[in-house]
Amino acid sequence: MEVRGKNYRAVWMEGNKLFMIDQELLPFRFKILSSESYRDTAKAIIQMKIRGAGTIGAAAGYAMAQAFLECSKRRKILWEKVDKAKEDILSTRPTAYDLYYAVNRVYNKAKLSKHPQETALTEAAKIAQEYVEAAKMIGYYGEKLLKQDCKVATHCNAGWLALVDWGSALAPIYFAHRKGKNIFVWVSETRPRNQGSKLTAWELHNEGINYCVITDSAFAYFASKGEIDLVIVGADRITMNGDVINKIGTLDKAIIAEKYKIPFYVAAPISTFDYSCLDSAKVPIEERSASEILYQKGLAKNNKLESVLTCLSSSPVRNPAFDIVPSNLIKLIITNKGLIRPNKRDIMKLFK
Amino acid sequence: MEVRGKNYRAVWMEGNKLFMIDQELLPFRFKILSSESYRDTAKAIIQMKIRGAGTIGAAAGYAMAQAFLECSKRRKILWEKVDKAKEDILSTRPTAYDLYYAVNRVYNKAKLSKHPQETALTEAAKIAQEYVEAAKMIGYYGEKLLKQDCKVATHCNAGWLALVDWGSALAPIYFAHRKGKNIFVWVSETRPRNQGSKLTAWELHNEGINYCVITDSAFAYFASKGEIDLVIVGADRITMNGDVINKIGTLDKAIIAEKYKIPFYVAAPISTFDYSCLDSAKVPIEERSASEILYQKGLAKNNKLESVLTCLSSSPVRNPAFDIVPSNLIKLIITNKGLIRPNKRDIMKLFK
Repeated sequence: MEVRGKNYRAVWMEGNKLFMIDQELLPFRFKILSSESYRDTAKAIIQMKIRGAGTIGAAAGYAMAQAFLECSKRRKILWEKVDKAKEDILSTRPTAYDLYYAVNRVYNKAKLSKHPQETALTEAAKIAQEYVEAAKMIGYYGEKLLKQDCKVATHCNAGWLALVDWGSALAPIYFAHRKGKNIFVWVSETRPRNQGSKLTAWELHNEGINYCVITDSAFAYFASKGEIDLVIVGADRITMNGDVINKIGTLDKAIIAEKYKIPFYVAAPISTFDYSCLDSAKVPIEERSASEILYQKGLAKNNKLESVLTCLSSSPVRNPAFDIVPSNLIKLIITNKGLIRPNKRDIMKLFK
Repeated sequence: MEVRGKNYRAVWMEGNKLFMIDQELLPFRFKILSSESYRDTAKAIIQMKIRGAGTIGAAAGYAMAQAFLECSKRRKILWEKVDKAKEDILSTRPTAYDLYYAVNRVYNKAKLSKHPQETALTEAAKIAQEYVEAAKMIGYYGEKLLKQDCKVATHCNAGWLALVDWGSALAPIYFAHRKGKNIFVWVSETRPRNQGSKLTAWELHNEGINYCVITDSAFAYFASKGEIDLVIVGADRITMNGDVINKIGTLDKAIIAEKYKIPFYVAAPISTFDYSCLDSAKVPIEERSASEILYQKGLAKNNKLESVLTCLSSSPVRNPAFDIVPSNLIKLIITNKGLIRPNKRDIMKLFK
């Protein structure tokens, strides 16, 4: 999407160099990072300089390709090193299914090829391109759900920063806006990392779409006042029975939406569906560092990015990064292959 | 309650000087403010240096008494000035019912008295003392709801800082703990002002009670995992049909508690019940400044309290400070006159 008159993706490769928009610095600074090794790319994922299901998937696929380029000697692949690299990349974020999807796809394709390095690179680029195409199709199908003058609520960031380009939850909004529909978006902060108020607000601002930032706690208030017509969120993993794993706080919103009979939609490309996982009970839920809650990062008066302590520093903290929305709270899933109901039969059809 | 071995109330008067714990600086600094004029006291309420339904009530009653002391000449009351002072104090926080209750009580009592100044001072002190007694009774009645090893969730701060001493939602927890029961408390941050992670965490830490800070968004996650046995929150106003107006985010928790069949209790002294208000539809909901959401205050590395910008600075923001929990989501209200059901009949009995 456009930033200051130029078109960008959240992640892209040139030669063996991977370029990424540093999402840790947004909306305060717009900076492009580059990485020439799989380790640096993995580090950027761990440090959440890049985040979002699809963007992590694309970056992880590229990281796997980088590993093939690095772990070779006179075009001979050092499989032990490649296998180690694969494990390293897979362990960066345990909940994101796209990461597994992309890494395994690049690895398996390259393993069967006579030219593993070229194949890995081609496959990684193909995955990134597929995300972009998928995002466009999500925008196309989802746009029909948005009526003129509707008020949509979203959570976290499931925009183009999260899905290489266009986005999942935000793609239908971008499509509707470009079609001339007047859309208003409620953006919940998304503590502790504020991806809503930092990234989604920045994306919507860039596109000239009306929005308003609220605390995560204010969702029920506006729902109870009839100010939310529908909810669209992204997903980090979808199990075969239609349960959705997404940013902590998604479950709250799904329960409140049910209470006020507000349709609750999930938008995701089919790469987010975990074919091997029948239900959500066994999905590992990443718990992140206490410091994410104890400290808040932001722009200080000296125009530097600084962290301030926001609570008693000795406070015990629990910081799960995701929660699980059971399928019965979800009206439809907006995929790149069309709108589906969150049940096994409809999901299985996607894979045929 | 005890702070560093000494006993404190959140607000108290000596002579014509009002003393208050500066809650804006907690948990980083423990500082006592003093005010010698009703204007300074009103300012402390507006700036939220003191907050919490009962503490605001007590401080507002004292402020009204200060006005009587100031707005007189040779022991003759300048009623025009006193009336103006009354309006000033009433306008500081539009949603808190205790403020109306205390200001009107001091004013009316003094107006009928031959010695308005003395009467105003005595009545204000009586109100503060009544809060303390009420809080103790809430602790006494509420304690019975807490079983050994139970996990209680609370929101915002309804502890002794909020109710002069002991607290409303936290009083039962303090009583249970002092009785030797093992109690664990989930403390939600309570954005945007973090009264949970700043004040409730500090209070529980001081008392040696086990607790854990979570984001406001993580409540449903822990509820869904069976990790929350009951919820107790305070109230800023209760209408005669049993609807409860409390800190933004309370409604979210009530809806989620209903979904998972977790008992949801509200604790409040009877001064929080608005006898003139049949239902919550007409209660004004205070919307506070956007800067509370755009900026986060905390302790910087230089050990100074600073604010950092946490979102796109141009973001439109909506910042309602309270939401309304309909009575049907509340199991019982813990009052200083016992446990009551949230309906008109039970509430009317309190006033007989």
